[in-house]
Amino acid sequence: MRRKSFEQANCPVARSLDAVGDWWSLLIVRDALSGVRRFGDFQQSLGLARNILTQRLRRLVELGILESVPAADGSAYREYALTPKGEGLLTVIIALRQWGSESCFSPGETMERLVDTKTGKPLARLEVRSQDGRRLKAADLRLRDVVANGAASLAADE
Amino acid sequence: MRRKSFEQANCPVARSLDAVGDWWSLLIVRDALSGVRRFGDFQQSLGLARNILTQRLRRLVELGILESVPAADGSAYREYALTPKGEGLLTVIIALRQWGSESCFSPGETMERLVDTKTGKPLARLEVRSQDGRRLKAADLRLRDVVANGAASLAADE
Repeated sequence: MRRKSFEQANCPVARSLDAVGDWWSLLIVRDALSGVRRFGDFQQSLGLARNILTQRLRRLVELGILESVPAADGSAYREYALTPKGEGLLTVIIALRQWGSESCFSPGETMERLVDTKTGKPLARLEVRSQDGRRLKAADLRLRDVVANGAASLAADE
Repeated sequence: MRRKSFEQANCPVARSLDAVGDWWSLLIVRDALSGVRRFGDFQQSLGLARNILTQRLRRLVELGILESVPAADGSAYREYALTPKGEGLLTVIIALRQWGSESCFSPGETMERLVDTKTGKPLARLEVRSQDGRRLKAADLRLRDVVANGAASLAADE
């Protein structure tokens, strides 16, 4: 099934999914956030055909989520590094990770867990909060149309 | 392309994507979190064919993310309500929403924004933090294999 494009949607969730809402893109970003940079390492982690991986990496570069940079070791290889836009997906990956840990494993199964390197402890759960620090649930939220004006004005408006 | 199933993966990100990693499922959850409960209202919001919507709703019920309940108005209709497992996806939706707002709109475009009903202000950005409250970046994190043991032991271990 060919999906509808959400490139013009007013909803940021829909636009995010339009950009990275295929499972491979988010798994590539997951690996990049864990320090993977080379084609061969992505391939090994994902078990993905070369042509599909090439296509997905190219798309992530076009979207400004990854950039292709010379290899850190000075060899002729290219590596893929996350841009600041790509690093902004950390909360998406952490949210998926926390929900998956809580909801998609049975007792006794082996599970990868992300820990704080300094202490070896799991992270705090992500929390939805108001600007003045109150915990919010879905029922405490509502949608409003605003005019996008770049990151600066979003901050100013807050 | 038929995707690989991640149902048996050790990575919670992969399992989450296996469950809800098609764009429609997450958009249905987005709408449910905004209070949509009826088939016709999901259909109107998503512009999705009846048979595809039926299939996706059924799958979300099978996964224990939605449950089918009698209509609140006492009519013969059924409604779809989020379970606690489904409500746990709030942070995933908020993370996608915040990244989309920051990265996928040009100045001047109309954009939906989620606000705190009480104050009308945008939410605080989700933050990745350690248990003792330090802000963490991707470079501060590492992966460790653990044995899943249900929610209780995850809490105990922390």
